[in-house]
Amino acid sequence: VAAGLGDDAATLEVPPGEQLVVSSDCSVEDVHFRRAWFSGHEIGYRAAMAALSDLAAMGASPLGITLVLAFPPAQRHEIEAVADGIAAAARETRCRILGGDLSRAAALFCSVTVLGSAPHPVRRAGARVGDALFVTGTLGAPGAALRALNAGDAPSAGQRARFARPQARLREGRWAAAHGASAMIDISDGLVSDAAHLAAAGGVGLTIDLDRLPVVQGVTAAAAAGSGEEYELLFAAASDLATGDFEREVALSLTRIGEVAAAAPGGRVTFVQAGRRVDLAPGHDHFSP
Amino acid sequence: VAAGLGDDAATLEVPPGEQLVVSSDCSVEDVHFRRAWFSGHEIGYRAAMAALSDLAAMGASPLGITLVLAFPPAQRHEIEAVADGIAAAARETRCRILGGDLSRAAALFCSVTVLGSAPHPVRRAGARVGDALFVTGTLGAPGAALRALNAGDAPSAGQRARFARPQARLREGRWAAAHGASAMIDISDGLVSDAAHLAAAGGVGLTIDLDRLPVVQGVTAAAAAGSGEEYELLFAAASDLATGDFEREVALSLTRIGEVAAAAPGGRVTFVQAGRRVDLAPGHDHFSP
Repeated sequence: VAAGLGDDAATLEVPPGEQLVVSSDCSVEDVHFRRAWFSGHEIGYRAAMAALSDLAAMGASPLGITLVLAFPPAQRHEIEAVADGIAAAARETRCRILGGDLSRAAALFCSVTVLGSAPHPVRRAGARVGDALFVTGTLGAPGAALRALNAGDAPSAGQRARFARPQARLREGRWAAAHGASAMIDISDGLVSDAAHLAAAGGVGLTIDLDRLPVVQGVTAAAAAGSGEEYELLFAAASDLATGDFEREVALSLTRIGEVAAAAPGGRVTFVQAGRRVDLAPGHDHFSP
Repeated sequence: VAAGLGDDAATLEVPPGEQLVVSSDCSVEDVHFRRAWFSGHEIGYRAAMAALSDLAAMGASPLGITLVLAFPPAQRHEIEAVADGIAAAARETRCRILGGDLSRAAALFCSVTVLGSAPHPVRRAGARVGDALFVTGTLGAPGAALRALNAGDAPSAGQRARFARPQARLREGRWAAAHGASAMIDISDGLVSDAAHLAAAGGVGLTIDLDRLPVVQGVTAAAAAGSGEEYELLFAAASDLATGDFEREVALSLTRIGEVAAAAPGGRVTFVQAGRRVDLAPGHDHFSP
């Protein structure tokens, strides 16, 4: 997967007429994850997919990854598993490892920069009054896994897999971009927080119906809306969007969960359930700074 | 200087017909530097210039920077100085801060990704037998500063400035690329090590005359060749290169220090002084992993 590692920098062709899209993320031991929860391979895979999810949220196609790995010298063997996990994520999303840097450090530290391109990147701002709001996949599994792990319990295999091996919704993001999505974001901080980001960026008021939220079994809609690490996409698009085409073409559910109700400087999100307004606080992520 | 920080990723136009050039570097407390040596501003400035130097070595023009900063919560105030130092380096080299990530961590950790572009990036491989070897600027000051600091002495102001505020030789690298440089590298590991990298990449034997080495006062040619953190450029080009034009146009010395003597699979570097062959070991950098 590696390419161009012999030079001072790597080179890349950006497809003519497309814009470069770039994002850098870090993953730090005891801040973003606990070593006891994941294998080295999963730590690397998650870090890369979390960064790639930012490309998905722009409707971009990945081109390459650079990585910085720092770790205690005694863990040199395990860092190979982390690098293998990053390489696996790169292979699955068909992008190249372009290079990077290694260092020793007191704790495991992983920084991933992803490069991609899109003809028309979709931003957080741009949601139009009258658009409908859509979410990919189902919510709630990573949050349930995190709650179980924090309580010292074992999460179910399905919930653990969603938490340990998230999938960047790259095809889904490109589909949304190609079908007129006016604004998009990934749900890495949780639906409550990220819907607020989308509303604030666009200066709009969003209404989200919790009864429509696609949630995994055993998780309430409110819990699923509050928890992060989801890496599903939330986007605004015309209300007659062909969700059936989406589901056929990318083999994932797409659910209409609300609408862009009004202009609202500064942004506003209203959650309703059984026809009544519900107040939801943003989820608290124990592993964010 | 910051742009596009509100979206999941930043977007960038790569000039039509040019290739994207990208490199990621990290700078870790007690590995790459000691806190006692530098201000927070200098730590950030150095980290950014070291990464930008990789673009210089490809003959590329910088477009943007992403950064990841991790630090102990109690040092939040100082991290602003680090970020200011990175922003100063970005301003001086006319590139944008595109975004990044912040985290807490046990020690200060800084990862910088630089993006640039070039019509024809210059690689480490490509030196042609018969080419001459050129080096920009003067060598030896950062190594002398590091030796003084390690010995508990104060370096001279000039040596300290070269160590604490390195300059990425971006104009110099572009000049070399535009004037037919066949292979180029920055001297971040020291001339002995980086000449070996250039020789190995190109499968050539280099001869370098230590008597021609441009060194600062008070440092021997052997010491200057062995020490790293220089961030000058070493490149191969036609032996009739107009070094006078270079010096007029970029206001820095350019010195012919040797030649590409022969093909040599695996690479070979021969140092001569006073007409005799001299054996030089690669410099030992106390702060590399």
